[in-house]
Amino acid sequence: MDMSDARGARERLVVVGGDAAGMSAASAARRLRGPDELEIVALERGHFTSYSACGIPYWVGGDVTDRDRLIARTPEEHRARDIDLRLRTEVTELDPARGRVRARDLASGTESWTSYDHLVIATGARPVRPELPGMDAPGVHGVQTLDDGQALLDTLAATRGRRAVVVGAGYIGVEMAEAMIKRGYEVTVVNRGREPMATLDPDMGRLVHRAMEGMGITMVNDAEVTGLLTGDDGRVRAVVTEQAEYPADVVVLGIGVRPETTLARAAGLPLGEHGGLLTDRSMRVRGHENVWAGGDCVEVLDLVSGQQRHVPLGTHANKHGQIIGANVGGGYATFPGVVGTAVSKVCDLEIARTGLREKDARRVGLRFESVTVESTSRAGYYPNAAPMTVKMLAELRTGRLLGVQIVGREGAGKRVDIAAVALTAGMTVEQMTALDLGYAPPFSPVWDPVLVAARKATAKVGAAV
Amino acid sequence: MDMSDARGARERLVVVGGDAAGMSAASAARRLRGPDELEIVALERGHFTSYSACGIPYWVGGDVTDRDRLIARTPEEHRARDIDLRLRTEVTELDPARGRVRARDLASGTESWTSYDHLVIATGARPVRPELPGMDAPGVHGVQTLDDGQALLDTLAATRGRRAVVVGAGYIGVEMAEAMIKRGYEVTVVNRGREPMATLDPDMGRLVHRAMEGMGITMVNDAEVTGLLTGDDGRVRAVVTEQAEYPADVVVLGIGVRPETTLARAAGLPLGEHGGLLTDRSMRVRGHENVWAGGDCVEVLDLVSGQQRHVPLGTHANKHGQIIGANVGGGYATFPGVVGTAVSKVCDLEIARTGLREKDARRVGLRFESVTVESTSRAGYYPNAAPMTVKMLAELRTGRLLGVQIVGREGAGKRVDIAAVALTAGMTVEQMTALDLGYAPPFSPVWDPVLVAARKATAKVGAAV
Repeated sequence: MDMSDARGARERLVVVGGDAAGMSAASAARRLRGPDELEIVALERGHFTSYSACGIPYWVGGDVTDRDRLIARTPEEHRARDIDLRLRTEVTELDPARGRVRARDLASGTESWTSYDHLVIATGARPVRPELPGMDAPGVHGVQTLDDGQALLDTLAATRGRRAVVVGAGYIGVEMAEAMIKRGYEVTVVNRGREPMATLDPDMGRLVHRAMEGMGITMVNDAEVTGLLTGDDGRVRAVVTEQAEYPADVVVLGIGVRPETTLARAAGLPLGEHGGLLTDRSMRVRGHENVWAGGDCVEVLDLVSGQQRHVPLGTHANKHGQIIGANVGGGYATFPGVVGTAVSKVCDLEIARTGLREKDARRVGLRFESVTVESTSRAGYYPNAAPMTVKMLAELRTGRLLGVQIVGREGAGKRVDIAAVALTAGMTVEQMTALDLGYAPPFSPVWDPVLVAARKATAKVGAAV
Repeated sequence: MDMSDARGARERLVVVGGDAAGMSAASAARRLRGPDELEIVALERGHFTSYSACGIPYWVGGDVTDRDRLIARTPEEHRARDIDLRLRTEVTELDPARGRVRARDLASGTESWTSYDHLVIATGARPVRPELPGMDAPGVHGVQTLDDGQALLDTLAATRGRRAVVVGAGYIGVEMAEAMIKRGYEVTVVNRGREPMATLDPDMGRLVHRAMEGMGITMVNDAEVTGLLTGDDGRVRAVVTEQAEYPADVVVLGIGVRPETTLARAAGLPLGEHGGLLTDRSMRVRGHENVWAGGDCVEVLDLVSGQQRHVPLGTHANKHGQIIGANVGGGYATFPGVVGTAVSKVCDLEIARTGLREKDARRVGLRFESVTVESTSRAGYYPNAAPMTVKMLAELRTGRLLGVQIVGREGAGKRVDIAAVALTAGMTVEQMTALDLGYAPPFSPVWDPVLVAARKATAKVGAAV
């Protein structure tokens, strides 16, 4: 490349964002190209690198006792591998035309430009935080970053009250409901949707709703939060919806996230309809030879619907980082897309999904049959065989698998992987009925619950043709 | 068909063998054709129908307290669905040329012929029982049938001793070792192979060996049993190998099974090199329009090696039965083959495999790379994250997945399903690296152990080309 030739053989990779995607990219590139060939500068506005945001609910809930256990790789470890990591350094402008970024040292306030040969944008996501009265009051907490988690734990340590309200009933909301239960709180979950876990169809969300009520959690659905009330001390004291007030000593926001692409937008980089950066298969930003993006700030191809989605998950961010690092390092790797697999738990309830929900399928013009079956995690006669509900969608005529949702107890969640691989391979539900899955009484009924669903779906699709 | 036309519209289905394959076939055929169209006669030499032989170790071990819980459907339930089930009726001859079978009523000793329009052979498997001195002594037990299980339990109830020897270290052997541990016995496993679980490569079998020793089980490998010693009371008192004697108050035989095809062989039906019946995709015996076979008495196509195998497992028997019943009932269904998935446990140790071992791959002329990785069942920081070893074989040049073996603790075994589906779909290990598997800290590290293995295998295959 001309610029690097002008400076000599050594190229510079600049990474914006020091969590999973960014630091995986930096590490993978470093494995392929040593510091003589490639200088790596990573800019991170926070205090931490490479941590598991997904682990925060378990840290708050006490399952994980030490914050540092959530950190996969410390700044020192990155620096030991010749990565020039600059913490508390916020990038304020991307200038792809001139191949440089501007960053501010948050301690000193000084700004400076850094030029790059390769740029990785890994700016992550920002939590949705509606602008409502009281949203910034003490006692109201997001759980996006380690700093957020520490602030919430500090509040819990200092608060005498026992009532927690969780706003939002997606996976962060339900995981935080579990965390607050474990902390001994009376928990109310206030949810805008018809049922919790809007990533499931409402009939499956209803099972989650009932199970959470069975755990003593108060579930409020169809409820739009209109504001938060504060007490004389300025601290939050209640969550207000159009219908009611819910007293709260602490409020946890688990409303979801959006791609953090403010800088990318300002720089004229291509964004999709969900606000995420658009990349090609190699995770290169479309139309920009030397700019790469991955993790929670990009949109990904949904292999089932054929459309772009925003799927903020650590597992994708890590894959993106690896792929970018391989490509920047002179190798070759691509990311084919996702099928939309997710798994969560609330206490002993396991919740999983992959592929399309009914409304997703309709939205992209697919017609389908849907079946729901009840089965158990183990042979019915084996101890602790737990009930499990599996819902399966199959395309009309072709019988192609479109999606699976599972709600159950121990052993239910990871069964979704069977469907995730089948979706990736484009299998029909009839092909799935013959799958040679692991069987022994402690592991599965003789017909695995996923096979039972596939048989029923096959019969229904066959009957409908 | 001519014969049925001669007798009128009603056809007769005769089923030989009343366990999973036979009674699934009968039930599935009955669902499609009522008693006015199809008479169904099922002949079973034992006392029971449709029971889970796979559950016997858990009944003996006390996890399942009631024998009847292993019975999926009783004779009365089958009869209530218009199946003419005749227990204690042993078929003594198959006569496909004349479309009839001869059977003996075991109570009266009388024999008679029954003609059929459709015949289902579901004679199962017979345990390997070497002809050695003392093999028939009191205190020596197989665990193939419910009657076997009851006899063993009767012996345990009547025996004061505390030493059990299990002969064989395949899945029945290791499951019975667990059962005897749970019954409070000191357990010795005497195994002909180099390591236990010969369905794994020896390096993975070695992990099982060590784990079983850690449970207090005495493991004796490379040991050929030459006979059993009996005491003055005629009861077994020791197992003898070429090297040593192992005192035993009770001996459990778990040496494996062979297809029970004595009748089929005598009738000139086609058998494969493993002694099992050969069928086509519809589970019809090759060359015999009206004869079907399924379950432990048939050979199946291994989709990975392209060769026939004998895989006696209840999950296949149930599928075969469904397929036969659908076809006899006028529907259409086929069995594509197996990939060789199996999962077992010994106490909290989980053992799983699918596809080819190293020696299987060599035997069919495949060249491969093999990798082994250590990972955990959950995120490393999450409570009860358990270690897991995953071995993966990939074909040279193509990178096609050939097999996976897993040894670990809770959460390890059913992960093999990911590989089972990938094998069925013919995926490469590189394709597997992008699989969108369920991730959350309580369920998996951010890179699922199977993905870690796939990444390492991809790198190795890539480097070898």
